[in-house]
Amino acid sequence: MSEDVNARHADKRRKIKAARDKMMETKTEEKGLIMVHTGPGKGKSSSGFGMIMRCIAHGMPCAVVQFIKGNWETGEKTFLRERHAEECRFFVSGEGFTWETQDRERDIAAAQNGWTIAKEQILDPDIQFVMLDEINIALRYDYIDIDEVVDFLLHEKPRMTHVCLTGRNAKPELIEAADLVTEMTLVKHPFRDGVKAQKGVEL
Amino acid sequence: MSEDVNARHADKRRKIKAARDKMMETKTEEKGLIMVHTGPGKGKSSSGFGMIMRCIAHGMPCAVVQFIKGNWETGEKTFLRERHAEECRFFVSGEGFTWETQDRERDIAAAQNGWTIAKEQILDPDIQFVMLDEINIALRYDYIDIDEVVDFLLHEKPRMTHVCLTGRNAKPELIEAADLVTEMTLVKHPFRDGVKAQKGVEL
Repeated sequence: MSEDVNARHADKRRKIKAARDKMMETKTEEKGLIMVHTGPGKGKSSSGFGMIMRCIAHGMPCAVVQFIKGNWETGEKTFLRERHAEECRFFVSGEGFTWETQDRERDIAAAQNGWTIAKEQILDPDIQFVMLDEINIALRYDYIDIDEVVDFLLHEKPRMTHVCLTGRNAKPELIEAADLVTEMTLVKHPFRDGVKAQKGVEL
Repeated sequence: MSEDVNARHADKRRKIKAARDKMMETKTEEKGLIMVHTGPGKGKSSSGFGMIMRCIAHGMPCAVVQFIKGNWETGEKTFLRERHAEECRFFVSGEGFTWETQDRERDIAAAQNGWTIAKEQILDPDIQFVMLDEINIALRYDYIDIDEVVDFLLHEKPRMTHVCLTGRNAKPELIEAADLVTEMTLVKHPFRDGVKAQKGVEL
């Protein structure tokens, strides 16, 4: 590489850094965020669990309420219950993905039970981050009332508490209420080619 | 709810479950996947770390190579180095995001060093999952040669080893070579409203 290229590179970087530093000076507010991970792609729950890892690292007490998964052993449940139970509370309210069950009343009761637990954890002053895993599926089928959830998040959630809600097909009311919404889009998936769900990746 | 609604629901669920069970029977292949998390949204690294959590849960030895972050303390680095060092190897090759540095030669040397470590970890028969965090940024600036990376992943990676490559602007060659590609799309971000990066969420 010529010195010229490197000099131009350094100059460009310096300008970008200056612009970024100036922009970051305006980012001063701290508040608990309402975060939504939705879309048909992968990584909605995984990235929530990645944030749980960060919370544990920072000594921030946190909680997970799983709304739909529950029938099978997931890696994250094993990991958090067996290894980090003092730092992260872990609740399961559902009974497997909705297509595994055939009893609507039981699904509704499980979802309502999960929402009761969720509210308790969010209101608990000891807890700084709550992940409501796959709650969007329960909301989509109206097993939990979307207006009640949005009203609670906007008006009863303690100001500094973060809440992360995951699951595809997030309702528009929730997206409207959220501070941060990420949509995971599927570009390519190995299921198409006959590859099954594998430990570490999906389970 | 009337019994009629519940009966219809049970019937619909039974059909979906049957279709799904039949579909899943065809998903029998196990192989190490080449996974890419890209796009401008959040969750690219977080969901990789969520998969690392699953690997640790399942007793699958794993490794992380961070290509760009490095100047500041990240929660995941602290967590993995201090709490799970025996289960997950953690390497840092970069010196902060590219806009923080102004020395192109140093960036290239750091990226190349990271790629050397990455190849060693992927080839190590003890390691089952390798996360190459933010490698896409190093690839985008041609600090590492994309053809070399794709060739290595397709022809030298052990068959059962999973590799997850993260970072925005994934190169088309990498997307073409990958088994699973997820694009994270930003729908809403609180930076717009003056909220700063916060522990547990971003750090």
